[in-house]
Amino acid sequence: MTNKVKYVYVFGGGKADGDRTMKELLGGKGANLAEMSRTGLPVPPGLTVTTEACDHYYKNNEQWPEGLDEQLREGIAFQEEQMGAKLGDPQNPLLLSVRSGAAASMPGMMDTVLNLGLNDEVVEGLAEKTGNERFAFDSYRRFIDMFGDVVMGVSHDLFEEAMEKLKEEKGIENDTDLSAEDLRELVDRFKAIYRKKTGFMFPSDPMEQLRYSVNAVFGSWMADRAVRYRQINKITGLIGTAVNVQAMVFGNMGDTSGSGVLFTRNPSTGENKLYGEYLKNAQGEDVVAGIRTPKDISELKNDMPDVYDKLVKHTQEIEKAYQDMQDIEFTIQERELYILQTRNGKRTGAAALKIAVDFVEEGLVSKEKAVRQLVTTTHLDQLLHPQFDEKAITEKEVIGKGLPASPGAAVGRVYFTPQEAEEAHEAGEKVILARVETSPDDVGGMHVAEGILTSRGGMTSHAAVVARGWGKPCVAGCDEIVINYKSKSMTDGKQTINQGDWVSINGTTGEVVLGQLPLEPPKMSDDFQTFMEWVDTFRTMNIRTNADRGEDATKAREFGAEGIGLCRTEHMFFEGERIIDVRRMIMSDKEEDRRKALEKLLPYQKQDFMEIYEALDGLPVTIRLLDPPLHEFLPHDEDEMKTLAKQLDMSFEKVKGRVSVLQEANPMLGHRGCRLGITFPEITEMQTRAIIEAAIEVQDKGMKVFPEIMVPLIGTAEEFEDQKAVIKTTADQVLEETGKKVEYLIGTMIEVPRAALTADEIAPLADFFSFGTNDLTQMAFGFSRDDIGKFLPEYLDKKILINDPFQTLDQKGVGKLVSEAVTLGKEAKPDIKLGICGEHGGDPESIAFCHKQGLNYVSCSPFRVPIARLAAAQSALQEKSE
Amino acid sequence: MTNKVKYVYVFGGGKADGDRTMKELLGGKGANLAEMSRTGLPVPPGLTVTTEACDHYYKNNEQWPEGLDEQLREGIAFQEEQMGAKLGDPQNPLLLSVRSGAAASMPGMMDTVLNLGLNDEVVEGLAEKTGNERFAFDSYRRFIDMFGDVVMGVSHDLFEEAMEKLKEEKGIENDTDLSAEDLRELVDRFKAIYRKKTGFMFPSDPMEQLRYSVNAVFGSWMADRAVRYRQINKITGLIGTAVNVQAMVFGNMGDTSGSGVLFTRNPSTGENKLYGEYLKNAQGEDVVAGIRTPKDISELKNDMPDVYDKLVKHTQEIEKAYQDMQDIEFTIQERELYILQTRNGKRTGAAALKIAVDFVEEGLVSKEKAVRQLVTTTHLDQLLHPQFDEKAITEKEVIGKGLPASPGAAVGRVYFTPQEAEEAHEAGEKVILARVETSPDDVGGMHVAEGILTSRGGMTSHAAVVARGWGKPCVAGCDEIVINYKSKSMTDGKQTINQGDWVSINGTTGEVVLGQLPLEPPKMSDDFQTFMEWVDTFRTMNIRTNADRGEDATKAREFGAEGIGLCRTEHMFFEGERIIDVRRMIMSDKEEDRRKALEKLLPYQKQDFMEIYEALDGLPVTIRLLDPPLHEFLPHDEDEMKTLAKQLDMSFEKVKGRVSVLQEANPMLGHRGCRLGITFPEITEMQTRAIIEAAIEVQDKGMKVFPEIMVPLIGTAEEFEDQKAVIKTTADQVLEETGKKVEYLIGTMIEVPRAALTADEIAPLADFFSFGTNDLTQMAFGFSRDDIGKFLPEYLDKKILINDPFQTLDQKGVGKLVSEAVTLGKEAKPDIKLGICGEHGGDPESIAFCHKQGLNYVSCSPFRVPIARLAAAQSALQEKSE
Repeated sequence: MTNKVKYVYVFGGGKADGDRTMKELLGGKGANLAEMSRTGLPVPPGLTVTTEACDHYYKNNEQWPEGLDEQLREGIAFQEEQMGAKLGDPQNPLLLSVRSGAAASMPGMMDTVLNLGLNDEVVEGLAEKTGNERFAFDSYRRFIDMFGDVVMGVSHDLFEEAMEKLKEEKGIENDTDLSAEDLRELVDRFKAIYRKKTGFMFPSDPMEQLRYSVNAVFGSWMADRAVRYRQINKITGLIGTAVNVQAMVFGNMGDTSGSGVLFTRNPSTGENKLYGEYLKNAQGEDVVAGIRTPKDISELKNDMPDVYDKLVKHTQEIEKAYQDMQDIEFTIQERELYILQTRNGKRTGAAALKIAVDFVEEGLVSKEKAVRQLVTTTHLDQLLHPQFDEKAITEKEVIGKGLPASPGAAVGRVYFTPQEAEEAHEAGEKVILARVETSPDDVGGMHVAEGILTSRGGMTSHAAVVARGWGKPCVAGCDEIVINYKSKSMTDGKQTINQGDWVSINGTTGEVVLGQLPLEPPKMSDDFQTFMEWVDTFRTMNIRTNADRGEDATKAREFGAEGIGLCRTEHMFFEGERIIDVRRMIMSDKEEDRRKALEKLLPYQKQDFMEIYEALDGLPVTIRLLDPPLHEFLPHDEDEMKTLAKQLDMSFEKVKGRVSVLQEANPMLGHRGCRLGITFPEITEMQTRAIIEAAIEVQDKGMKVFPEIMVPLIGTAEEFEDQKAVIKTTADQVLEETGKKVEYLIGTMIEVPRAALTADEIAPLADFFSFGTNDLTQMAFGFSRDDIGKFLPEYLDKKILINDPFQTLDQKGVGKLVSEAVTLGKEAKPDIKLGICGEHGGDPESIAFCHKQGLNYVSCSPFRVPIARLAAAQSALQEKSE
Repeated sequence: MTNKVKYVYVFGGGKADGDRTMKELLGGKGANLAEMSRTGLPVPPGLTVTTEACDHYYKNNEQWPEGLDEQLREGIAFQEEQMGAKLGDPQNPLLLSVRSGAAASMPGMMDTVLNLGLNDEVVEGLAEKTGNERFAFDSYRRFIDMFGDVVMGVSHDLFEEAMEKLKEEKGIENDTDLSAEDLRELVDRFKAIYRKKTGFMFPSDPMEQLRYSVNAVFGSWMADRAVRYRQINKITGLIGTAVNVQAMVFGNMGDTSGSGVLFTRNPSTGENKLYGEYLKNAQGEDVVAGIRTPKDISELKNDMPDVYDKLVKHTQEIEKAYQDMQDIEFTIQERELYILQTRNGKRTGAAALKIAVDFVEEGLVSKEKAVRQLVTTTHLDQLLHPQFDEKAITEKEVIGKGLPASPGAAVGRVYFTPQEAEEAHEAGEKVILARVETSPDDVGGMHVAEGILTSRGGMTSHAAVVARGWGKPCVAGCDEIVINYKSKSMTDGKQTINQGDWVSINGTTGEVVLGQLPLEPPKMSDDFQTFMEWVDTFRTMNIRTNADRGEDATKAREFGAEGIGLCRTEHMFFEGERIIDVRRMIMSDKEEDRRKALEKLLPYQKQDFMEIYEALDGLPVTIRLLDPPLHEFLPHDEDEMKTLAKQLDMSFEKVKGRVSVLQEANPMLGHRGCRLGITFPEITEMQTRAIIEAAIEVQDKGMKVFPEIMVPLIGTAEEFEDQKAVIKTTADQVLEETGKKVEYLIGTMIEVPRAALTADEIAPLADFFSFGTNDLTQMAFGFSRDDIGKFLPEYLDKKILINDPFQTLDQKGVGKLVSEAVTLGKEAKPDIKLGICGEHGGDPESIAFCHKQGLNYVSCSPFRVPIARLAAAQSALQEKSE
């Protein structure tokens, strides 16, 4: 052992070994504690065991690295010196908290042990020293409970039951009514429970308590719920959790003590005003767990004005230092304020926007920083969530009102366990998850729910924090409603609402309503407009939209779309009467008859394109030629076939025969895309004519039109060459007939793996490539999007896939095809225009990938356009910073 | 113009500008003529216009390159000098032949003009000089006919009609009975036809005639039938055709003249004896065209013994020089022998083998040369064609006997036009094409036919040559049968055989039989065994086979398979009673019930594997785990479902429900392959247990077993990891239970594009990769094999695809995935075993690709094993020579 690895970093007394840049090594909490201590904030002294120690632990059969034990002792000695107290010394005991803290925030996920260092001797000394026997034994019983639960896996419920039993025996209602003597009794009972369940005596050596606790924190890193949380939140690349061991300070030393949590600004609205809660004579977990309903932070001003002023001062300093709204835990021990923790606060989308705009206007951050870090795409997404349409509501049956814990409106069928919520979701239901209170074990069910309702807990309860993080509506602490897990129902005292009944919850007002209220789309605030203007100044990729109709195109333009990246023409074929002519075309087996039917369709198509051109005046419109297999347009049951036979004046047998001829074993890999245009060039001709004729007419109205004709499902250069010739010949003919000019492009989808692999052959012929990553994903994986449901859930469960590859682009495989096509395509034609259409165009992670690949634009659904704009800006800023 | 490009190469008089190595530039014919002249053979002097001139012609708007005209004049001057005659000189005229000749042989594909140089003056001079007016005018009328037809597009039929009319008027039957005066008359009538149809006078300037003719040869390069022939025969990369202009020698100068074609050995059997035909007093095209039935070459010995001896001597020299059996055209002009052309002779598979073995034994070539060049995979393929099973034939109605022009037996429905033959073939029928005689225009229909029958023409007629080249049975010149195109029927005089009636033809005996005769598989000759032993000494790749049953495995082993590359387990599931247990397994929705059903299947699977292991004793056996979607095992009509419900003691509704649940939109991309094993690990467990238990039992019998367990449809490393763990755990358990040892490998198919792209992640986990190029082709192109029929014919017609990519591996796209996977896989695991299974493993072109990629083995169907062995050896020799 020549180089001693440093596994323990201490902080306290205005100094620290680490700083805020060391998140990877010290975890978010540890790095912040070091930073806070460094900047002179009143942080209780402590130490951080590094994530590397955790990594070593998992890589070495759960053994500690050489030197950790010794460094831990040295760190404790530092704290002892700082606090003027000694671990295990009954005369002047130091008590410790042990907390997890990984590089990414995972609220409530990791286990915590408080009051470590207590034993039968120390507790007496503590009682004597503080003159508060009740406090000492309350701490002790809490410690045994937590240590038993978190470290040794003894159910917390057993301790709770024992306490409830004692309270019952004593005829008291509140925990605080228990006397010191009662708590001594409780300590004995808790130790008995501990011994019975673990087979061991409760450990009295504080260092042994500490070692066990550190291991428990390490262990919680790989607990199922932590793994699941990381999975849902896409947290990867971390090597483990750090462990923070810090001197305890006590909020439960009487009425001049207390604990609280606060946000430096309102996390729901963004208002610049302290927002939080505190509890007198309580430790921190009492506030967060939502077991006792806490007071608003503003009441501290009345209770202890000097402490409140100090708190305000410190929080302003912290906000300035961290350049972000902070989520702070504090404790007051006999009027002495301690800051226990600070981290970036989770917030709603609306709050994020207001905070970002305010921070810029207050001069706290630059616009660039605001765009890059203060608003996430998830925040924007949340803003695009619906609200209740109050105008359309004539009456509503409110069955309760709780805390407006996370804004937005949600409607769904109520379920009371996360498992049942998940099952109902899988079965396609919209779900409201209702719980007495939520815990980290519930995250699966919370994730699939439209909204969350709890009957207990505050604005910073687990449910509230998690829901806000996800932008999901949440009503918390609605104690008018009583939830009964056993009967799978809840009641407002008047009526019973059973599992599966419809409820509507309003996370903005806290109202819980029976039945389904109408929803309305969200409105954009001024902050939104301001912020998005900044966003656009940093963005280098264009954002287009996928729209098939004029009205969608108009909406997308309002959201900032800079063109249409995908206009699917097949949707147009289904509208109104025209489906009959489409079917007539398909039923013909002679080219001549098909041409006749297509002639009837031409005016409709032309009209569609004109509407879109007019909506996009001056912006490019990418129109994809007919893509789906023809049988998709045909009826499949006999009655409909009979109707069609009558409509087309054809025999039923002929209709049935043709429908059956067109059936395919694997339509996704069948006669579709450009294969239609190649075998029936008259379809391509008609569509091209409609595109060009419409362009001419709209130009004649004085508008600008830039059609980009896109050939789908190209796999070989020869296919594209064939269709390009048909398009060009037809377009030239129309232009010659009319004597007009239209600027138009001819390009291709890259959605067949072979096209990506031979992009160098296709590029010289094409004006643009548009990556159709839906089909590319289907073919690269061999996954039919329609059939993946049969095995995807199992794949995600078994971690064979981390994401649904149809939602987030698979960069390793599908991405490799994209990047190969970009490289080959650009080599062959440096100025080729590159874009992406399809679902991934609206997914921030995939957008970042597209930016890296150097695409010119992404195209997504109208409601994702703002998200794509922000993601594109953040990608550009990310690149700039690298 | 500083550097003069040489466009014209002369030969003659024992010298030549070119030689046999210059095929690309001079075409096969031109290079051979140069070579023959160089080696002192009696070749009429001539010149070759290079393929580069043709290329220039097409690239420059059909203009001749600078200098060609001048060089052509110089070349003619050389011939004039050699022959002591002058082009256009009535006193002593030189006449010319003009022939095409590309680098690859395309019999009959390119147009030929003979007797060029004749005009009204020259013909008189020629008559005078030869004292043979009839010959002179016969040559003239042939020239006008050919020039009119080939150069100016005047139908040959018009000239034929005119001659028939004259013969009728004169009351004569044979062309040879026409007098000189008749022929003078015919020349006038021919010129009138020419003028009427072209609008021009027949050109009298010989140089003008020559220029037109050279252009006609150039033009025929891009004629539809030539393009189509190149397409069918996969001839690519040529820049154009050369033009050979050669002094005419005349086989039609009376009874001491004649023309013939011969093979140096028998092209049907390989026997070392001249094989061919000649016609007295005739030009070459009379022999080849099959219009007059020629004499056997042996009769020349009686007719002109000195000429015959000289011919034998020259042919032996040529064979020795060219190290291959030769196809020679010769002309005798008044007892003077001229060799007009020699080229490698087309031959049957049996002949190829005998010739190769004889050549080696005669010391003419090395074994290496014999393996590399004297036998093609097509030859072997042909040997594997069936014969009639004579023992099973009790009676047969022979309706005619023609020449045994290409061996093998064929049964099909008769069609009389290539178009109808192609249509019937596309509709799935087996076709016999019957024609009076075939022409290059018929190649499409010939290609799809099982066999070819002609009523006119000899052993070297177009039909015979082409059929032998393709290894297709052919009966030629069967004049007992009269074919009537109009009524779409043929008759033997007794009965009428209509289009669509069944006939059987025997290309080995020449018999044509009504109805369907039974076929039997071919037997392998001693030459085959000898040759294949040589083949194996040059091969570096192993050849495995795809076999699912013991009997197939045994047959493949006889054919030289060195293991099984693909044993599909699903076929086993269908056999006999076991399908019920398979269905029972599928119908269960509980794991426990599935396990029960699988337990019943275990002994069957084990038995299957034991049979295969025993057949392969000592050779590796790759077993693929269950691959197809489960619904493939279920009944799909209601009656069958009812039966199943009864068998499984289940309600019909439940059966129907389950069947419908298992239906998929795109089963090819659905719940199949490893996705089954991941969602139902019990299937993988059962199959692994069967594989290992069977191995133990067969080992206990004293045999060696090398099972290689193959996981299908892997797309991600995680999938493989999951299945590998299941396999390993199960196998270890079986081995522990029994206390035995079995060497086994676990590997994966690479058949999903994503797997190829991420092969570096999969390789470290896998013992081997086996490329499943069927699925890889499906997914790379996005072509469903079951549905491609809807557009593939159109794709081939439009030349969007050159081959069916399911038959010949698409090297550009699919091959890129293979080569990427090989590179990535070997980087990650240098000793990974690489193979290919699926259709491409038996395709020579694809095998050559696999060799280049460095695969360890290819696997193909048992009957393709010899072909694969040869292809692998040829690839290795090719590589060696590069």
